[in-house]
This record gives sequence, C-alpha cells and structure tokens, in this order.
Amino acid sequence: MSSSVQRKRIRKSPEARRAEIVATAARIALAEGLECVTLRRVAEELAVRPGLISHYFPSAEDLVAEAFSVAALGELDTLLPAERPDGTPAQYLARYFALSSGEAYDDISRLWINARHLSRYRPVLRDVVTRMELASDDRLEELVHDGVARGEFRTDDARSAAIQILVVLDGLGAHANSDRTDRPPAVTRLALSTAERALSLPDGTLDAPGATGSLPLAYSPAEAAEAAVPRLAATTAASASAAEPTEPVAATESTAARTTEA
Amino acid sequence: MSSSVQRKRIRKSPEARRAEIVATAARIALAEGLECVTLRRVAEELAVRPGLISHYFPSAEDLVAEAFSVAALGELDTLLPAERPDGTPAQYLARYFALSSGEAYDDISRLWINARHLSRYRPVLRDVVTRMELASDDRLEELVHDGVARGEFRTDDARSAAIQILVVLDGLGAHANSDRTDRPPAVTRLALSTAERALSLPDGTLDAPGATGSLPLAYSPAEAAEAAVPRLAATTAASASAAEPTEPVAATESTAARTTEA
Repeated sequence: MSSSVQRKRIRKSPEARRAEIVATAARIALAEGLECVTLRRVAEELAVRPGLISHYFPSAEDLVAEAFSVAALGELDTLLPAERPDGTPAQYLARYFALSSGEAYDDISRLWINARHLSRYRPVLRDVVTRMELASDDRLEELVHDGVARGEFRTDDARSAAIQILVVLDGLGAHANSDRTDRPPAVTRLALSTAERALSLPDGTLDAPGATGSLPLAYSPAEAAEAAVPRLAATTAASASAAEPTEPVAATESTAARTTEA
Repeated sequence: MSSSVQRKRIRKSPEARRAEIVATAARIALAEGLECVTLRRVAEELAVRPGLISHYFPSAEDLVAEAFSVAALGELDTLLPAERPDGTPAQYLARYFALSSGEAYDDISRLWINARHLSRYRPVLRDVVTRMELASDDRLEELVHDGVARGEFRTDDARSAAIQILVVLDGLGAHANSDRTDRPPAVTRLALSTAERALSLPDGTLDAPGATGSLPLAYSPAEAAEAAVPRLAATTAASASAAEPTEPVAATESTAARTTEA
C-alpha cells in the first residue's frame, strides 16, 4: 500500500467495517483461541481505536460468539455445502471425510474444543455452539436424504446416521491438541466406517481411489470464515445497520503495514 | 469439629499434607474448572497460607496437571478397575457404559474438555493428558483381552477395539456443556453399539437387564479422585519427601468450619 493511499483513507460502510471486524476476530480465534478475541486485540489488528470495535460490539461476549459462529459456518459451508452441483452425494461425503482429517481441520477441531469448554461459562457462546451443532446435524442429514433419494445410500433414519457420524468426528477431533501418532487404522477410519455402516455402503467405499470425484480438496479455515461473514449477516439481519460514529483513526504506518500484510 | 480440636492442630506428615492439597485441587477442578486451580484458591480451601501450597507445588502448572491427573486416574480406577474380582469382563464393560452416561460422568467429561483445551497452551498438562489417554487405552485393552481369553468377546485387535470405544465416548462427552436432549437412541447408544460390533457381541447385550450383574453403580468423581491420590503418588514417588517448612497458620474459625463442611 503506498503512503498516499494510506493517508487518504476512505470511510468504510458499516457493513464492510463490521465484516472486517468479525473476519479478524475469527482469524484470531482460529490461530490463537477464543480467549485472545478481545476488543483491544481486534482493534490492534485493524489499526483502529478500540472504541470503533465496541461501537459494533458493545459486549466482547458477542464478538467472541460471532467469531466462533463464522468460523463454524465457514467450515460447514465449505466442507458440507448446501448446494452440491459438482458431484454425487457419495462424492461430497467422501470429500467431507477427506477434509476432516487434514492439518487445516485441526485448527477447526481446536476451535470446537475451545468453544465447547468456554460454553461452560459463557451463555452467549453456548447458544451459538448449540446452534452450530444443530446446523451441522441438519446439513449432513440433508446430504444423507439426497443420497437416499438417488439410491446411493440406504438408511431408515437419516438424522440418526448424520449425528452418529458427527459424534465420531467429534471424538476424533477431541484429540487435536494431543499426540495421535499411535492410532490404529481402524480408529483413523472410524468416521468413515461408521458412515459406511449407517448408510449401507460397502467397506472402503468412502476413501477408495477416486471417491471424491473431481471435487476440490483445498481448504483454508480462515478464508472459509471470511466468506461466511456476509452469509451469517444475512441470516441474523439488522446487525450492521448503525452508522459508524467517527472516522477511524489510522495507526502508525508501521502498524498499518503489518496489519495489511497479515 | 470442636474448637478445642481446632486450636490443638497436629502437624500433618508431608505425605498427608500433599495428598490433601492434591485432593482439594482435584475437587476444585471437577466442580469449577482447571482455571480455578490456583495456589491461593487451594490455600483458602484448606485455610492455610499460600506459601504452604507453593512449598509442595512451586509451579501452579504442576498442581493443575496433578489435579487433572488424580481426577482422571480416579475415573479410570473406578470405572475400569484393574482388578475385577466381582464379575465377568462383559459385566464390567456393561457397568463402564452405565457409569459413562450418568450426571456424575458429565463432571468428568467437562474436565476432559477443559484439559484438552488447556493442553494447547500448557505443555505439562498436555503430557499428563496424553499419558491418561494412553492409560485408558491400556486399561480397556486389558479388559478386552480378558474377555477374549474367557470366550466372552471376539476380536482380532483388542487395542483397536478399545480405542474405537473410547473415541466414541469422547465424541459423546464432547457435548457435556451443550444441550443434548434431542439425541436419537442410536446416538445415545453409540458407544455400546460400537463395542458390541467390535467385540462380536449380539446387539443390545451391554445394556440388557442384568448386564452389570451385581456390580455397584454408584460413582462420585471427587471421591474417586481423592482415593487416587496415594495411588498416583506411589507411581510418581519422591514427590512427598520434603519436610513441611513451618506450622500452617489456621485461618479463622468460620473459614475452617466452612472448609470442613465442604
């Protein structure tokens, strides 16, 4: 960024500013933990006054909950998209498992452990965690229904199958901060074998070569969270209506440059 | 406690004092979380000076790790005892599942979520969490071996069966701070059905009427932790060798009374 651009800051729309705050909070939450999401820290990252952050989020609790919310929604929409035009339900399910065991997913698993722990003390966060758990159940249930309708899966109870799969993924993810090098293959594959059994698929179907078809397998939790910000705003509405109070104070050039690079 | 006893305090042995500190820390950890385990807080509960606690635990990190350690060891020794004279392996396994779904177990599940989250930042605790995970794997594997030897279970890989069961229990326990009222029966039973499948038992065996034989089903995590203190001390040795520095200062009568009642 050239210094002339730096000095001629354009006032952002409230929607854009709020989105920037939430995406920044989600990035901090994924990389360092929800405890690090404070008004001061987000203000530092964006090189603005803390008062600007508290204008949008009078309570830090709400910002923490929304940071988790967009990270979890980004995960859901990327790993289990609601629209699935590029493959079969079985291919999307295979892709879900492929993405649920990589290193990028460890960041998400750590965030879920983090949120589930803090839920014990923070009711706003607990509500969001419960809502995101139900949204995951719903989304995977839809995929299962779709697969049953196309004759790919067979089950009498799509919802139960979906929750069983998610409970096993939670169990595997619970170890994201521990050493997991000694896991037997049957454990590493436990979510897949649970799905294969619950959906009456032959053993080995979901990680067979080519099981994911031509679906893309790259995944960045932070980018997914950023993409989820407007989607969440659309569902919660009215959240970005207040006009920004004053022109944000640009921080020193060096801080601003660091933030831009990050 | 009468006030004459109160005034004539007898100096405790270093072993007894250390055990009292660890049991108190574990009780706080179970009821309120590992973040509440501080030298000051434990000193308050015991009505002694904080300096006495730091004599035994110069680093609060070590006390936090040991609090988790005895709570987890108490859970393991109570739910999956190493000696099983009062029933068959299948009865002890059925009892394990019966105890792993009650309200008392929620305290343990919350503590595991807590410890797994803090492991991200605290290497001493992370080591203990990993050690207790392996100890659980080992103990359940032994039970499975025993059952296979007696012809009750059938599996080619006792360790894999054990870890699969524990991963599912972790997945169910991961929701200990969330609303779980809408779970379908197949989800509530997921750990049992995983065990029945992995051990070639008929469906429904492990929660059939009488499955636990005459084994006792009561369980108090705090009492189990207290009972585990000397067992842990015996395995880590040398931990209680230092003589106590000075006579502990008794707090006010009212504080001491409150602590005694707790």
